[in-house]
Amino acid sequence: MSEQKIPYKIYLEESEMPSQWYNVRADMITKPAPLLNPATHEPMTANELEMVFCKELVKQELDNESRYIDIPEKIRNFYKMYRPSPLVRAYCLEEKLQTPAKIYYKFEGNNTSGSHKLNSAIAQAFYAKEQGLRGVTTETGAGQWGTALSMACAYLNLDCKVYMVKCSYEQKPFRREVMRTYGASVTPSPSDTTAVGRRILAEHPGTTGSLGCAISEAVEVATQTEGYRYVLGSVLNQVLLHQSVIGVEAKTAMDKYGVKPDIIIGCAGGGSNLGGLISPFMGEKLRGEADYRFIAVEPASCPSLTRGVYAYDFCDTGMVCPLAKMYTLGSGFIPSPNHAGGLRYHGMSSILSQLYHDGYMEARSVEQTSVFEAAEQFARVEGILPAPESSHAIRAAIDEALKCKETGEEKTILFGLTGTGYFDMIAYEKFHNGEMQDYIPTDADLQVGFDGLPKF
Amino acid sequence: MSEQKIPYKIYLEESEMPSQWYNVRADMITKPAPLLNPATHEPMTANELEMVFCKELVKQELDNESRYIDIPEKIRNFYKMYRPSPLVRAYCLEEKLQTPAKIYYKFEGNNTSGSHKLNSAIAQAFYAKEQGLRGVTTETGAGQWGTALSMACAYLNLDCKVYMVKCSYEQKPFRREVMRTYGASVTPSPSDTTAVGRRILAEHPGTTGSLGCAISEAVEVATQTEGYRYVLGSVLNQVLLHQSVIGVEAKTAMDKYGVKPDIIIGCAGGGSNLGGLISPFMGEKLRGEADYRFIAVEPASCPSLTRGVYAYDFCDTGMVCPLAKMYTLGSGFIPSPNHAGGLRYHGMSSILSQLYHDGYMEARSVEQTSVFEAAEQFARVEGILPAPESSHAIRAAIDEALKCKETGEEKTILFGLTGTGYFDMIAYEKFHNGEMQDYIPTDADLQVGFDGLPKF
Repeated sequence: MSEQKIPYKIYLEESEMPSQWYNVRADMITKPAPLLNPATHEPMTANELEMVFCKELVKQELDNESRYIDIPEKIRNFYKMYRPSPLVRAYCLEEKLQTPAKIYYKFEGNNTSGSHKLNSAIAQAFYAKEQGLRGVTTETGAGQWGTALSMACAYLNLDCKVYMVKCSYEQKPFRREVMRTYGASVTPSPSDTTAVGRRILAEHPGTTGSLGCAISEAVEVATQTEGYRYVLGSVLNQVLLHQSVIGVEAKTAMDKYGVKPDIIIGCAGGGSNLGGLISPFMGEKLRGEADYRFIAVEPASCPSLTRGVYAYDFCDTGMVCPLAKMYTLGSGFIPSPNHAGGLRYHGMSSILSQLYHDGYMEARSVEQTSVFEAAEQFARVEGILPAPESSHAIRAAIDEALKCKETGEEKTILFGLTGTGYFDMIAYEKFHNGEMQDYIPTDADLQVGFDGLPKF
Repeated sequence: MSEQKIPYKIYLEESEMPSQWYNVRADMITKPAPLLNPATHEPMTANELEMVFCKELVKQELDNESRYIDIPEKIRNFYKMYRPSPLVRAYCLEEKLQTPAKIYYKFEGNNTSGSHKLNSAIAQAFYAKEQGLRGVTTETGAGQWGTALSMACAYLNLDCKVYMVKCSYEQKPFRREVMRTYGASVTPSPSDTTAVGRRILAEHPGTTGSLGCAISEAVEVATQTEGYRYVLGSVLNQVLLHQSVIGVEAKTAMDKYGVKPDIIIGCAGGGSNLGGLISPFMGEKLRGEADYRFIAVEPASCPSLTRGVYAYDFCDTGMVCPLAKMYTLGSGFIPSPNHAGGLRYHGMSSILSQLYHDGYMEARSVEQTSVFEAAEQFARVEGILPAPESSHAIRAAIDEALKCKETGEEKTILFGLTGTGYFDMIAYEKFHNGEMQDYIPTDADLQVGFDGLPKF
């Protein structure tokens, strides 16, 4: 491989941008397990799913065979507004670490949502619009997904109702205002706008909400309001499909310069970014055409892959959604208040869970103080202020690069830098002030979640 | 001009990035007036300036003849980390406005400082390092300049002492933490770390500070600490020189596609972004090789070009800096608390002042509610959440595009989108809640500032 003249940043030409998403399920020998109806424990049918999700998205959700799925022109045009995202050669980080490793990262933070979430938000909003819907509903915790969806809906002139976990709504007013700038209605959850919200408020008058409750409210509004559907920012097969634009762009850019990664690293919460990044590479590995090491990095405080069980579980804490087979800590597991909100999910994408289960992917967990050390080191040499979530991948990439320094191996490392940390400065402040703690659940803590798994 | 196949975003190749800054002073028939020693009213000599500024920067400050000045390789490498910035064709805005105008913007917000300030920060930090200095001092208000300088200093391993106006320090803790992430020391001003700070604290115990006071503290520390110099983020000739990288890139990208702008628009506070954007285009106009309309846009609440006088004035409210000839509202003018902190400067770059005075550039002022209307309209179709400062240029660009809609003219408009508004959500919130007011100073308000002008 020729390493000459590789620029600091590789931007594909518009003509080189992907025209198709890559569906890694087509290459999987063991397909991801289907979603189950929580009442019957039978696989969810398309008809059942279409009560909640848009028709075309249900089709994508259930399609385990088509390797390539065309990206509609209107979505491609939206992608042109903020994509291609740069593939960056981390020359400065390499120099700082004095490593023979070659480090690349695919940076998804150069858009107003501040993360990769926009890649799926525009797709989901587009299909809702195509179906003639009036709007969509969703929940948001830290707010990146809600922001992305608001942006997509503003572009398509689609109504957007966001249920935002009440404590985030109050603690992150700036995120809320970004969504309002894009015309979304943002309701703190639990609220009195839904039956489930009113019930929870009656039972727990002082509650500051939870993601599970916000999902329940959003699903209720979507299913009971004419012309609305519910959309979700991670976990689902369709979301990984849309996020494959990350991996396809990255692979195209690397192929263009004759570079082949040895190790591909991503942070993993619900799995959307990692799944998207690795898709076309994993396809090659599954087909036996190439070999790569894939590493999923998760917080030690919420270790679904490294310490969870592989079982059917509820996707939400409210237990209103279908059951998914995944590595899970149990929908009743409450992660400690770490600062990577986007990684505080009890489960993991069924696709990634199956791939991990079948030995195609590794996983490791890291503690947040070491994550913020990596984040600060990265920011100072590479300029970009990374999100806490993304910094999990930075931590692992630095660790792998330091191993190369010891062994002298010139490995090529690719990691996903999913977003920026502008709205996470409270966490950075705690880190600077030495007030940040690490949380590692005990086996007893985990048992509580496992005990709540559905039994059948 | 062929308009075919113009992509949404034009990124120059690394090989096409500027290797030289463009010094528009070389083309000016009437050169900008020199800085004067406030005691003697004689032009500041290089020796005098070198007490405060780095040697090479003083050379650049005084060089009215060299049209091109080489960008050192280390600075070019730093530029490669976040540049080239995209030249964006605003297809979506054009469609929304239903205008025949062709709108382009040069987007400088895709870096962690969130603005164009980094272009000069790295240059000033580099020359400080080259001179063997230990560190630099500066002041910051809203924090964009301080962030940019912190990033540049972290990259070069140079100490960075930032004096941040106390009310901003307290109201914008996130900005402060970004600077700390990059290793800068951030001191709320006035502070007890300087003689001038202690004097002001004794005289005004409850003061929340001012930019003028912060400048005075930064200058005191720079001139009284071995191995330190003071650096400034706007107004000075050297800063406009460094910012010419914006204009050179924009012109290279437009030339590549055979596009020639009719109108070039930028917001104007101290003038660094506008001066940088227009430099190579203005050079052509001054040499009679091409014609362009240039429009400086300023807040109605701080209208230095449109309602100020052209006179020698202090650059700072503390009156410790040299006198500059510029359009000014008087260093004692206190602008109303509008939300475009970066445009709340009483004066204007001497270069731009002279060009405006000589009729080469137009100026207009706009009110902030109409600025935020434009910002929100822009965000919803173009995706990017603009800074309030940058949105002044958006307002004028939209107004010009709407004029084209009336006349049917297919004009090509280029404007500078200097930065993002992630740290300005309090202002957006006020706008959303209908709590934003417009401030237009009365003639009597302005007279107070004019009365304080130095008389000689």
